[in-house]
Amino acid sequence: MHAPGPRPVTPSRRSAVAPFMVMDVMARAARIEATGGKVIHLEVGQPAAPAPLVARNAAAAALAAGQVGYTTALGIPALRARIARHYADAYGHALDPERVVVTSGSSAGFILAFLGLFEAGDRVAIAAPGYPPYRHVLSALGCEPVLIETHAEDRHALTPEQLRRAHRQAPLAGVLVASPANPTGTMMDRAALAALIDCARELSIAFISDEIYHGLDYAFPAVTAAEFGDDVTVINSFSKYFCMTGWRVGWMVVPPALVRTMERLQQNLSISVPTLSQIAADAAFEGRAEMEAIKQSYVENRRILTQGLPKVGLTRFLPADGAFYLYADASDFTSDSLDFATRLLDAAHVALTPGVDFDPFRGHQYLRISYAGAAADMHEAVARIGAFLAKG
Amino acid sequence: MHAPGPRPVTPSRRSAVAPFMVMDVMARAARIEATGGKVIHLEVGQPAAPAPLVARNAAAAALAAGQVGYTTALGIPALRARIARHYADAYGHALDPERVVVTSGSSAGFILAFLGLFEAGDRVAIAAPGYPPYRHVLSALGCEPVLIETHAEDRHALTPEQLRRAHRQAPLAGVLVASPANPTGTMMDRAALAALIDCARELSIAFISDEIYHGLDYAFPAVTAAEFGDDVTVINSFSKYFCMTGWRVGWMVVPPALVRTMERLQQNLSISVPTLSQIAADAAFEGRAEMEAIKQSYVENRRILTQGLPKVGLTRFLPADGAFYLYADASDFTSDSLDFATRLLDAAHVALTPGVDFDPFRGHQYLRISYAGAAADMHEAVARIGAFLAKG
Repeated sequence: MHAPGPRPVTPSRRSAVAPFMVMDVMARAARIEATGGKVIHLEVGQPAAPAPLVARNAAAAALAAGQVGYTTALGIPALRARIARHYADAYGHALDPERVVVTSGSSAGFILAFLGLFEAGDRVAIAAPGYPPYRHVLSALGCEPVLIETHAEDRHALTPEQLRRAHRQAPLAGVLVASPANPTGTMMDRAALAALIDCARELSIAFISDEIYHGLDYAFPAVTAAEFGDDVTVINSFSKYFCMTGWRVGWMVVPPALVRTMERLQQNLSISVPTLSQIAADAAFEGRAEMEAIKQSYVENRRILTQGLPKVGLTRFLPADGAFYLYADASDFTSDSLDFATRLLDAAHVALTPGVDFDPFRGHQYLRISYAGAAADMHEAVARIGAFLAKG
Repeated sequence: MHAPGPRPVTPSRRSAVAPFMVMDVMARAARIEATGGKVIHLEVGQPAAPAPLVARNAAAAALAAGQVGYTTALGIPALRARIARHYADAYGHALDPERVVVTSGSSAGFILAFLGLFEAGDRVAIAAPGYPPYRHVLSALGCEPVLIETHAEDRHALTPEQLRRAHRQAPLAGVLVASPANPTGTMMDRAALAALIDCARELSIAFISDEIYHGLDYAFPAVTAAEFGDDVTVINSFSKYFCMTGWRVGWMVVPPALVRTMERLQQNLSISVPTLSQIAADAAFEGRAEMEAIKQSYVENRRILTQGLPKVGLTRFLPADGAFYLYADASDFTSDSLDFATRLLDAAHVALTPGVDFDPFRGHQYLRISYAGAAADMHEAVARIGAFLAKG
């Protein structure tokens, strides 16, 4: 009998999600650096600073103590309680620790929320521009992302009118918003957030609030959706304000009826969240002075860019309310932001992210500029971009 | 205008997966310990030992060095290369590092494999008894787990005949096997594995091999499915042999055509794998002497149980080929293994796992006994189980 040989394997249709263009930019920047070039990195959405010292010390102590075993699926109880207390401290909002679910970064939070709240085929409204995994994870999990273009007159936030219109076209099952937002850096004020949550209730659809950039608010204080009732789902992370990207730890605040669902999903999908990261995260709350100093460096970086870039020709960007992003309209210079970013990188050794990753409609004329780096790099970036644009 | 109040939130149907019964056993054991009772833990599927010292030292050094940032989505290149080299060292098999995907434990490997290989609605064959998340993750992701009962005459492995029969009933899209297996501890020999892979090729369905218990083989050497061609998908982890459960790090070996798919899925689903865990995992390969000593302790534990339990009445269990599990037929004593496990825990303070978690068909008469603990605990467990059974 003749045994069949290896057969060709084809990926599933549902896994055909788009790659990040920023990865190509990063790979190109690495090649320039390999040949001795000095690249200014404005493309990466992560703090240059490490986690606060207390967090690193807590992880080191746990490491020295021996076994790093599984934790309970919902997270270490002390961490869940500490996160709940953070809502009292930061927002004056009393939160039941039982509603806190520790996750492997906000990434796992999206998977849990989409599986727990939505069926395959469900339509979920998101803003364009927006964080690319929103639409890619939704579609990989069988849901239909409904992209709604935001406008300057709405401070680039989804509006109740837009939500109602999308729901009339075909019923929605939910809506997901972020404030401060990636890539725009814009924020929703209390009234805008309240109105959208009220609208979601009126339409009987789930409301998910991505609050990963909370803590990094400059224009006005960020408001947590958790304040408006226990029917909203909040997703957050230790990656940005707490400077813990590579630790992969975050959390959710979920409606009471979803806690057991999340527990069972997490048991099956990931068993538990990285243990050292949970221990470090618990301690990180005590490193507030360190994190506030880093936030002040972003304030300075934001000042350098918002004052410097207009002088060298980049005159239009969205309100830089929070996070560490400027979203610049580069239509005076290009109608192909990927090509522009590539040429800027090659000629001036400045790496930034083309808007096409974030917005299929208008991203070809936008650039995302991350100011999570050092102040000196911001000055140098303004000078290099200016020289590049001057040469035409 | 009257704003609507919070609305009740209901979980999706697809998230209605079963909880682990073992969690109830663990919670009950914790209550006994809280009142001063001394519980022997045979229920938990994790090593009592920490990661090898070289791994912990590598993590400590990385922690001291500063920022713990994101890594590339497929994993740190040095770790991917080290894993590939492991296939040469352990199996004499040359493996292209480009086919290695670092994952957040085997848990993330299953999500990536199921999303990347299968569409919603696809039927995937798995063995009963088997690891509960296989069926729960498959169904949460819209696939249909097809449970096939294994038999003693097949050494509790799926057979080509069973696979063909299931495929005739309705076409399968894939099959997932584990050797050594959880909860049974049984292994497939080279001929059985080869025959099943050939059958999968003949049926043109995907073959996934869960090799998380490789390294813990006692009856004969475990064979990796990767040896049989680059069309199989292998899932593995640092949790068991490498004693790194709470670190959440594992790997896959994927068909060449799936590498980019996995990269794009991982970018979107998790960004990257915990960085300290990747660094520790790379170093862990150099801790082989420590891990082999731990393996020897399992050999001794296995001897204590397989010789001791029959003398006190538990006479029938599946071949204890590998992993650190005995799967015992308790039908002489119970037809309700959850009730039996609860009574054993309450009366004798011995915690083990009822088979109902692993096998909806026959699990009510089986018990899973984990021997990943200390030798003294194994002797004590035999004595306590004996006393409990003697009392009737």
